[in-house]
Order: sequence, then C-alpha cells, then structure tokens
Amino acid sequence: MNTAKRINQLRSIMSDQEVDFTIINNFENQFYFTGFKAIIYSRPIVLMVDNNNINLIVPSLEETHASETSNADKLYVYHETLVEDGNGASHIEHLQSVISKYPKNSKVGVEFSSMPVLIGNILRDAGFELVNIEKQIEEMRFIKDQDEIDLITESGRLVSSALAKSLENAKAGITEMEFDQFGNKALFTEVSQKHPNSMLDFFVMTPSGLERSILPHAFSNTRNFETNDVAIHSRQVGLNGYRAECERTFFIGNPNEKQKDAFKLAQEAQLTALDFIKAGVTAKEVNEVARKVFKKAGMEQYSLHRTGHGIGIGLHEQPSLRYDNDLVLQEGMVFCVEPGIYIPGVGGFRHSDTVVLTKYGSHLVTEYPRDLDSLIF
Amino acid sequence: MNTAKRINQLRSIMSDQEVDFTIINNFENQFYFTGFKAIIYSRPIVLMVDNNNINLIVPSLEETHASETSNADKLYVYHETLVEDGNGASHIEHLQSVISKYPKNSKVGVEFSSMPVLIGNILRDAGFELVNIEKQIEEMRFIKDQDEIDLITESGRLVSSALAKSLENAKAGITEMEFDQFGNKALFTEVSQKHPNSMLDFFVMTPSGLERSILPHAFSNTRNFETNDVAIHSRQVGLNGYRAECERTFFIGNPNEKQKDAFKLAQEAQLTALDFIKAGVTAKEVNEVARKVFKKAGMEQYSLHRTGHGIGIGLHEQPSLRYDNDLVLQEGMVFCVEPGIYIPGVGGFRHSDTVVLTKYGSHLVTEYPRDLDSLIF
Repeated sequence: MNTAKRINQLRSIMSDQEVDFTIINNFENQFYFTGFKAIIYSRPIVLMVDNNNINLIVPSLEETHASETSNADKLYVYHETLVEDGNGASHIEHLQSVISKYPKNSKVGVEFSSMPVLIGNILRDAGFELVNIEKQIEEMRFIKDQDEIDLITESGRLVSSALAKSLENAKAGITEMEFDQFGNKALFTEVSQKHPNSMLDFFVMTPSGLERSILPHAFSNTRNFETNDVAIHSRQVGLNGYRAECERTFFIGNPNEKQKDAFKLAQEAQLTALDFIKAGVTAKEVNEVARKVFKKAGMEQYSLHRTGHGIGIGLHEQPSLRYDNDLVLQEGMVFCVEPGIYIPGVGGFRHSDTVVLTKYGSHLVTEYPRDLDSLIF
Repeated sequence: MNTAKRINQLRSIMSDQEVDFTIINNFENQFYFTGFKAIIYSRPIVLMVDNNNINLIVPSLEETHASETSNADKLYVYHETLVEDGNGASHIEHLQSVISKYPKNSKVGVEFSSMPVLIGNILRDAGFELVNIEKQIEEMRFIKDQDEIDLITESGRLVSSALAKSLENAKAGITEMEFDQFGNKALFTEVSQKHPNSMLDFFVMTPSGLERSILPHAFSNTRNFETNDVAIHSRQVGLNGYRAECERTFFIGNPNEKQKDAFKLAQEAQLTALDFIKAGVTAKEVNEVARKVFKKAGMEQYSLHRTGHGIGIGLHEQPSLRYDNDLVLQEGMVFCVEPGIYIPGVGGFRHSDTVVLTKYGSHLVTEYPRDLDSLIF
C-alpha cells in the first residue's frame, strides 16, 4: 500500500486546517496511514504525525511487529516490565513527552469520535486547540486505489467461495455454527494454499428460523436448522486488511407464499439497486430505488436499515447508502448493497454483494445465484 | 447474570461520587451492566443510568435483540430510514434529548478511556461536570460471581479441548491456519452439541518458526510448519460472553539445546507463578516470582510482557499481574498466567493457563501437559 501518498494527503489536510500535528486513535485509520495492524487492540496504540515525523506509540509486545510493518519514523515503546530509566511505563507518558515539544496554542488534528476524553483532556490542559479532522480522513478512504481494489476483489472471490461451500451443506439437523464451519474450513484451506504470508480477517453469521432471521445482526448459535426454515447466511473476508461481503437468504425445504413474496421483493430491491449504482448518482438515490420496491409492495415498514455501506478496511465504512446522504458517488468507491426486510412471523430477507464503481459502471466482486430456486436446499 | 445487583452497585458508586447520572461507552461494561452484547459495534451504542432508569441508545437493527436481552427500562432507537417525526436519526440526537432532562451543573459519571471527545464536548457544553468512574467499574469486575465462574470454567474446558485437537494434528507441511482449523472445527461441533442457544466468541493464533514465534501477538498466516519449528498455539474461547485462555509452546521435530533450555525456563516460570498465585498475595509478587526464574538464568531481557492478566468479559482485563500493581488478590478473581520469553534466533516460549482464585488456593480451568516431551510432535 502507498502509505507515503496517504501521509502526504494527511499533511495537506493538516496544512489546510492550519494544524501543527495530528493524533490518530482510530485503529482502522492507523492501519491506513502506517500499514501496521495489531492483532489485539486491548493495549493502547497512538499515531502522531507532524510535517517531519511519523511517531507511533506501541506496547513492547508489538515492537518487532510494528518495526517490521509500519512506516513510522520513530516508535515509542511502552513496557510492562520495569525498564532501567523508569520511563515509558505507559502510552500516556510517551504521549506527554511527544506533545511537550510543541508550543502552547498549537493546533492538534484529532478524530472526535475516536479520541478518548482522557487524551482530549491532556491536550486541552497543555493549552492545545483540538481540531476535528475525522471527516477529511473518512473522505480520503472513500475512493480506493488499484492496490486496495485488487485485495477487495480477491476477498470477494474468497468470500463467495466460502459462502457457496456452506450453502452446499445446508440441511435440517445441523446447527448454525456447524453450517458456518464448512465455509470456514474451505476458506482457510484456500487462503493457505494461494496466499502465503497473508493475513486474514473473517466474519460469519447465519441466524435461522422465524425468530432469529429477523435480527439483522445475530451471532450464529447452536440452534438446529429445521425443515422449512428461512435463514440468512452472511460472510465477510478480509485479505491483508481489505474486506468484501456476500450474503444470501436461503431456505431448508419449502418456503410458504408469504416467504416467497418477501424473498422475491428483497431480491428485486437488491437487483434494482445493483443495476442503478454507478459513479454520478447520489448515495440517497441508490437507497431510494431499493426502498421504492419495498414501498410499492406496502412493505417499507419492515425495512430497518439503509440499503448499503462502504467497505474496505472497515466492516462497515462510509459512504453510507442512506436517505440523508447527498454525496455523489465516484469511480473507485466500493459498496455492499444489501436492502433487507424483517417481518415478524415471516422471517428476514436480505442478499448482499460487494460492488466496485468503475469508469464504465460497476463491477461485482462477489457472486452466487440470487433466485429462489437456487436458494432452496 | 445478576445485572440488577450490578446496577445497584453502580448506583452506590454514583452516590459515593455524588454523580447524578452515568454514561457508559465501553462495550464490555455495557454487556456487564445490561446483559446486552451486540454482534457488531460499528454503530454507536450508549448506556445511560441514573437512580431511576436504565436507558440504552441502540441502532434500529439491534432493537429486537436489545429488547430481548437487555435490562434497559427504555430503549432509544435511532434509525437509518426516514422516520415519521423526523427525530432519532442519530445516537447524538437521543443523547441530547436524554441529557436535557438533567439540570445544568449535574455531575456525570463517565469512563475517560472509553468516552469519545465528541460526547465529552457535548456534556461540557451542556454545563455538566465529568467525573471519571472507570476505575470503580473496573474494580467491580475484578471479582467474579459463581455464574461468571461457571461460564469461565466451561470455556476453559472447551478451549483446552480445542487446543488438544489442533496439537494432535501438528505436523510439518501444513499451514498455521490449517493447524488452527482442526481445533476450531472440534470446538464448533462440541459447542453445537452441548450448548444449545449459546453465544460463542473465539480467538486463535499460532505464530510459528524463529521469526514469527517471537511476536507475542501475530495473526496465524499461511506459513507452512517446517521440521524443527518452534510455535506457540494460543486460544481463547468465550461461552456466552465469558472467556478462558490456554496456550502451549510446541515443536515439530527436534528442538536444539538452546530451545530446550528456553522452553524449560518458560515452563518453570509458569509453574512457579501458578503454584504461588492465591488470595492474599499481591499482583506484583506473582509477577516477580515468574520473572525471578528468568532473571536467575540471565534471560530477563527477553521477557517482554507482564506475567499475566485478568480475564472474563474482556480478552485482557484488569487486574494486571505486573511490576507496579500492589493490589492484594482476592477469592473470585480469574487470571491468565503466561510468563514468556522471546529470543531472536531461538524462538518464542510461553504457556498460558486460566486460574480461578478460591478459598483454598486456586483452581485451574484449562489443562494440557506442559512438559517438553508432551509438546514435541
């Protein structure tokens, strides 16, 4: 990834905002700017950027990892063991030492939604002015470059293949978790073979039955699939930090008429949105074309969420395909398109695919048949 | 879980601190106080507690889930779809509406490390005084009640059994990911059979070889195990929100003399700490008995991290078994004991087990042989 280019863009934002230095607390943004992705974030990590230096505060047990993978000019390592000089026992000590180099009244670029009050207070007490630059950073991440799109495309292929493997094993009597496991295993095997030295994130859930499929987010649990169940199989795969999502609603045995209607409606809403989405239209227009399908059928009240969202480093990221977003979509943006309806007593219905906006329209990176016949097992 | 008791304790802390209401942003604490655990936290969730009410701000797609599983008196739901009255489009709108009911100069209990500056600023602008009560909440979680210990104990059994299943499949030529998969599959199968309607978190990593095993935290990747590799297999399982951890260092083929010595040293350090840990000793004493083993062998500089940490809802939680923690340990606390050394050119060496402090000493909830002969495959 071209982190040097991203740091330059950040510095240009800082210059526009007359910001002297920036503190990045959001982990996704830390990865975006430095290339460093910790495995566990229960110990604080802080990125500090000014015009000359990229400083990264890390716990000692990430020191080797960060020095190998990050672009930081200097690592400030805090220890859990007693160090000779007695300094650096916490990230806060390092933070205070770094900020002491800047004159009082300096302007600090921060992310208001991610910076904890603890650090905000330290900066204020030091006489600094906080400037919220999270929107500008969010916008930088809207448009993916070719390296990012290549990874998302491969993640799309991997997630589709894992989804297919679970679906081909769908049957009554197995649990949601066992069902997920078929695709997981195929995924791990394939990644192991095709992507040496890669890093894999994955997410999977398959809420099933009338009560659980209407929860848009629910952990897979040990409920057994039953004959005539409706279920939503949802997966994300992230290869080396970049994600794609694929989801299908499916049936074990025979759906009833209401379920068939609801299924076809969700399918139509998704196809309509996928057909419509392209550079030049607005986010809210994409949302509206899908919602109109539900509205026309008198089912709009069952549509609980937006039509879709950006994806990349984040599970969900901006831009959001929702009613109040006037943003004009551009080439290089990547979206999950997933209008859904959740009807008590009938079930939940949602397909999701990941789509890259191109010069010529859009390009799906995930694939699996969407029609009813292909999704009855 | 007895969330009513926990809320009462929180209210008693609030009373001591003369706090009028509390805002909880930390997701683990939200689960602790309400019983509600979202599957994805990319949409904000805010818990607000005063003497009369438990208010929970949730996105619409968690509404059913939260109303089924939380103890909230009132849910404030924000929507991604246009709602009739035009209100409730964001968590911030709900937050502002709830706080408007409290008089200016009210004192608000908050977690300084978890509350974002965005919300902190809103509270300050409204004339409230922020009181940091995160330490008190952290301390509440130190001691587990019997329900929590029961879940941790079962998680300990599950994680040990998954670890054993992966280890029995250890051999040269398979990747770290494939190796992990054996235990994962066994875990999912067992949970599916024994714990209907349960919720499962899991974590696994197995950095292998000289370069990767010295990284205390590293994602499993597609590196192939090679003959004479050293590797650390690390797992956590969380049943219905409560976790246990088990880790073993192992070899494919024959370790060299330096590796044998380092392995035995880490084993001895762990056994010494496990033997020593009990109610009545301090956290730093536990840390010291393990470190003394390394020090005596002249290897202390390779020990990068504390001897262990609390575990429960969090992957890592307080109390920390580190050099600067004078806390006296008590019955009902649960720890991962995992002293480790990481020697460039030789490898990483760490076993971890989860231990519950009891009236009579301590009780291990994880198990797998620790000796060298049992860990050569």
